[in-house]
Amino acid sequence: MSNMNYAELMQPVIDFLGCETPAAWLEEALNHLPLLMQDHANCEKKAAGTAMNLMFRYSFFIDLQVKLAQLVREEMLHYEQVLEFMAKRGQSWKAVSAGRYAGGLRKEIRTYEPEALIDVLVIGAFVEARSCERFYALAPLVDEELGRYYRYLLKSESRHFEDYLALAMDVAKTAKMKDPEEDIQRCIVHIREVEKQLILSPDDTFRFHSGVPARVASSDSEISS
Amino acid sequence: MSNMNYAELMQPVIDFLGCETPAAWLEEALNHLPLLMQDHANCEKKAAGTAMNLMFRYSFFIDLQVKLAQLVREEMLHYEQVLEFMAKRGQSWKAVSAGRYAGGLRKEIRTYEPEALIDVLVIGAFVEARSCERFYALAPLVDEELGRYYRYLLKSESRHFEDYLALAMDVAKTAKMKDPEEDIQRCIVHIREVEKQLILSPDDTFRFHSGVPARVASSDSEISS
Repeated sequence: MSNMNYAELMQPVIDFLGCETPAAWLEEALNHLPLLMQDHANCEKKAAGTAMNLMFRYSFFIDLQVKLAQLVREEMLHYEQVLEFMAKRGQSWKAVSAGRYAGGLRKEIRTYEPEALIDVLVIGAFVEARSCERFYALAPLVDEELGRYYRYLLKSESRHFEDYLALAMDVAKTAKMKDPEEDIQRCIVHIREVEKQLILSPDDTFRFHSGVPARVASSDSEISS
Repeated sequence: MSNMNYAELMQPVIDFLGCETPAAWLEEALNHLPLLMQDHANCEKKAAGTAMNLMFRYSFFIDLQVKLAQLVREEMLHYEQVLEFMAKRGQSWKAVSAGRYAGGLRKEIRTYEPEALIDVLVIGAFVEARSCERFYALAPLVDEELGRYYRYLLKSESRHFEDYLALAMDVAKTAKMKDPEEDIQRCIVHIREVEKQLILSPDDTFRFHSGVPARVASSDSEISS
């Protein structure tokens, strides 16, 4: 796929997100590649875990079951691939705490159904879209092998973001909400703003989904190249 | 693969288990295929869920992470396949409560590490081996299409049972237990006996892993063909 095709693939993702990744985060990422890699592995596992939790919580919803099962398989495969990358580069597994990102988004989940499920799915779409956007931004800056892998990943993630949105619409329609399009649109606008703040505001802890580095990442010493 | 080859493939599984499936269970199964199918779907999902829980609990254990991630992917694929079978046969999703089997086995898990993890892994091996043995026993009794699918499944499940045992040995060695072989062997002998009791004693509720049908399955009316 040429760079041009990637740009085309990325356009809906960029349009969906409220902002692009700040240059300061990218610079920090290049200085903390092993930490980025470990946190990336954790993110893939957590994405699979979140999808599986949804599968247990909403068993009766067959469309959701199938889509999420496929998603779990894909995230698990990525997880295995990132672990393989780490092994190949002689990087051993290290415990890395979670950043503020996922928790910050989850605070916005409404406490009643089907709105709670719709919020979770829309948040899932934003997490996938942001991952996609960061892979795209990182790809030309890292070494060739990793860059190739990030381009391969962004192709899946760009589908995942749309899958999550489609599921949210499915749920809203199945639950016979009065105006499904409008509720989801309102939810998207709200989460977009919260997500944008998490990306653009200063963040003490460098992670895959962290904000603008406030200072040298606190976990600098945790994992060094 | 010929029947002969299947018999060869099955021999270690049969040797590992404390008993074969009673004829009365098989007869009940043939009379409740849709219920069996729904519970089978649930089992695949739960197997993936259990493996994923282990991945979150024992993050630091890389061999375990990779093996379990592969297992999650495989169980998820089977789950999707069973849902597809159900859809193809016009069977809609129904809520089916869990049987006594997994809970009965989990009661035996010791409360301290690394023994707790070893117990979970050995139990995993028995669940996979029993599933395998039941697919093998069911395959010639059900319709051709389903029989073919059960034979396909038993090939994976027979590997899963050995994967779980290998992981248990890995854990015991990594934890530097005094006599890993002996501890695991003792654990296997104990779980084998408990599992055998669950399979051979009367059971009120017909499920994929249930015991000898005590009477017409209580959930007979839940799902009918």
